[in-house]
Amino acid sequence: MNQLPKRLLQNPSGFPDLGPKEAIAQQRMLDVIRRQFISAGYVPIETPLVERPEVLLAKAGGEISTQMYGLRRLNVSADATDDTKELALRFDHTVPLARFIAANQRELAFPFRRFAIGPVFRGERPKSGRYRQFIQADIDAIGDGDLSPLHDAEMVAVIHGIFSELKIGPFTVRIGNRKVLQAILKDTGLSDDQLGDALRSIDELEKVGADTVITELKGLGLDAKDAKALIELLTDKGDSDAVLKALKARDLGPGYSEGVAELETVVNAVRDLGVPDNRFRIDLSIARGLDYYTGTVYETRLDEHPDLGSIASGGRYDDLASVYVNKQLPGVGISIGVTRLLLRLINAGLWPASESAIAEVLVTTDLGAKAFGNVYLKQAAALRAAGYPTEVYLNEKPLAKQLLYASRRGFKFAVITRNEDIKNGTVIVRNLKDSSQHETTSAQLVETIEKLRKTS
Amino acid sequence: MNQLPKRLLQNPSGFPDLGPKEAIAQQRMLDVIRRQFISAGYVPIETPLVERPEVLLAKAGGEISTQMYGLRRLNVSADATDDTKELALRFDHTVPLARFIAANQRELAFPFRRFAIGPVFRGERPKSGRYRQFIQADIDAIGDGDLSPLHDAEMVAVIHGIFSELKIGPFTVRIGNRKVLQAILKDTGLSDDQLGDALRSIDELEKVGADTVITELKGLGLDAKDAKALIELLTDKGDSDAVLKALKARDLGPGYSEGVAELETVVNAVRDLGVPDNRFRIDLSIARGLDYYTGTVYETRLDEHPDLGSIASGGRYDDLASVYVNKQLPGVGISIGVTRLLLRLINAGLWPASESAIAEVLVTTDLGAKAFGNVYLKQAAALRAAGYPTEVYLNEKPLAKQLLYASRRGFKFAVITRNEDIKNGTVIVRNLKDSSQHETTSAQLVETIEKLRKTS
Repeated sequence: MNQLPKRLLQNPSGFPDLGPKEAIAQQRMLDVIRRQFISAGYVPIETPLVERPEVLLAKAGGEISTQMYGLRRLNVSADATDDTKELALRFDHTVPLARFIAANQRELAFPFRRFAIGPVFRGERPKSGRYRQFIQADIDAIGDGDLSPLHDAEMVAVIHGIFSELKIGPFTVRIGNRKVLQAILKDTGLSDDQLGDALRSIDELEKVGADTVITELKGLGLDAKDAKALIELLTDKGDSDAVLKALKARDLGPGYSEGVAELETVVNAVRDLGVPDNRFRIDLSIARGLDYYTGTVYETRLDEHPDLGSIASGGRYDDLASVYVNKQLPGVGISIGVTRLLLRLINAGLWPASESAIAEVLVTTDLGAKAFGNVYLKQAAALRAAGYPTEVYLNEKPLAKQLLYASRRGFKFAVITRNEDIKNGTVIVRNLKDSSQHETTSAQLVETIEKLRKTS
Repeated sequence: MNQLPKRLLQNPSGFPDLGPKEAIAQQRMLDVIRRQFISAGYVPIETPLVERPEVLLAKAGGEISTQMYGLRRLNVSADATDDTKELALRFDHTVPLARFIAANQRELAFPFRRFAIGPVFRGERPKSGRYRQFIQADIDAIGDGDLSPLHDAEMVAVIHGIFSELKIGPFTVRIGNRKVLQAILKDTGLSDDQLGDALRSIDELEKVGADTVITELKGLGLDAKDAKALIELLTDKGDSDAVLKALKARDLGPGYSEGVAELETVVNAVRDLGVPDNRFRIDLSIARGLDYYTGTVYETRLDEHPDLGSIASGGRYDDLASVYVNKQLPGVGISIGVTRLLLRLINAGLWPASESAIAEVLVTTDLGAKAFGNVYLKQAAALRAAGYPTEVYLNEKPLAKQLLYASRRGFKFAVITRNEDIKNGTVIVRNLKDSSQHETTSAQLVETIEKLRKTS
């Protein structure tokens, strides 16, 4: 038979292939994220991976439209027409949310608080850490007409819950406000036209450094002193109360005051929600999504791994779906790029991906599964029924090889039944961590494993 | 602004949109399936949704190739070439498994036992109960060279575990064997050419009835008596031991004996794995996937809802990946079409999809979240920290409306703090099922909910 050339067996570039170790590691991460979303009272919706091109393009044109994948028929059968012109892959969770709300607004209770965890597709040029298919985990709260800024605070609490439970080291959620940033920039005398350039420049602050940004701001007409003062103000790392006090001492018009009041509300509510002060701070330099965010904005960084960039970002927007529906739907959301985060954390040794078994127990088959299947299968059935995921080794191999397999795969216990055990009615449980062996009986097998799990 | 016409807001035909109720219901089902896969020692892999067309077409041509979706660029930017010719959407989990094993055979330990739960795509004409995107949940065990038939038995135990835990009524896993079926058919005098037609006819037995199949078999040259005897033999609903005994009494050549021995091994091992006799039976009429399955085959039906057809099917195949790799990789697998099953069960009232909240507790905000956010948010934080998913009602609405919202969404408890409660340091927990109210203190809130959960 003609076999495919080997290069075709690799996953297509930008579409990651996760083997058991990475898939188990990813599932552990997704479980934490989901649990925290649910803990805060968010509910899932499951929109399809496929949307109509008109829907995708109505919300996002420009650069991102060149990254969108449409569908086509691979083979068109003689009697069928290609009906795929109206099908394309989603590139985020926000556009499907907007479309879903527009289509179902009458049945939904607002504020509508939903989470979505699943793959999205972007035909970017694949480079280190960029994927064409990747899992995004989003929560958004959408109001009908208005939406309390306390929702903005809940986002911070959810992010805090997730990264605390993930235990990947200290992190800081940075909270900014676009109204405040915009008013401060305008106050320097920049024209409306220049604001966009200034925002883009400031958004790169962390990456390029203060000096470069100051030079760019000077290019926009600010004098050196003002540019420097601006950067100092925007990067004030004082505690939140001090920053708020300084902000409140200034008067830069109603938009500014509104933004500062929002910031204060969010900071207080974040504390009420139990987030400690060392896990968040005000960072006015966050710009993000120039045309999109209108109030609170967030970024999240690992304190000891700033190179990973922001690992959870988002913000407040005024208008989710006016291209779809005649309604003002303000929202606030936050998004975690799970695939990128996962694979970078695994590479950095910050997220374990060393076990290729989820089950803790391997029932070995020293006497051969063919002849003694009934013994081994019954042991496995008892362990599974008691809530212990269990694999039975069904290949005919010497016990030593089976134990090696157990250690390599990451099992914690091996159940061993030898010839003399059959005679004596005994069973051995081997703790694979310390190689200790514990004799017990078939009837006591579950109990023995239970005890060993507690003490080891 | 130009809004999109309403019809474009609907999800594309065949690509289901699950709102919170259905998405919650689906997640509950997927959690059970995943837990049972893990319980039996299976591990996940996560291959991309996108594969190369050559890979998909090498394993599956013919009719299915006209159902495959390729990708294309929606907009090609001026400086980019369309690189999507090598990208297409997977239509099952088996082809990606074969490709993954071929690409990673050196790193994998055999038998390789993996599960995969996720969407697949088929451009079928959408009709009732058929979807173009649907979730499949698969397990497969793949051997290198050989694979014990005990794996075939484990599939039955896993299916038994899943449908027992789902509690959707009594069900029966039917176990057949292609070697046995083929030998019996050949024994009637059918030629090799006619075998395929006979198998296709028998595969429809349940749908079209015995009389139609007998007529078709007569058309192939069997005389009426033989055709009737054949159907009686194939549909013997006796207990497994009696059927096995009858089968063993005949001698139809080595293939037949091998098949009968496999059946016997599987039946015994299924019992050893704790599956009760009323949950499985031998059904020799199962044909399935004519060119594909080579030994054990399965179907599963709900005893009281035969109209749903088979809800978990699969079987043993000799050769997973010879189009990709120079190796004999026999396997056995089973697949659940989750989306179809879920939506049919919901329609039939067999799977609840009435709650649009996962959280059990709603913290109401009688005094307004704006003014008393700190009280309400702290209550929510305490409940969440104690492991109770909790939503805070952050809209400013009268308490009666908030309680109505709580009941409609399916919350179990509402936490109420009125003006006098603030003064007295009290809190009310309302059980939304029986409308009973329980006064407690802020400090005792978690404990009170805990108690009420146990007694209600």
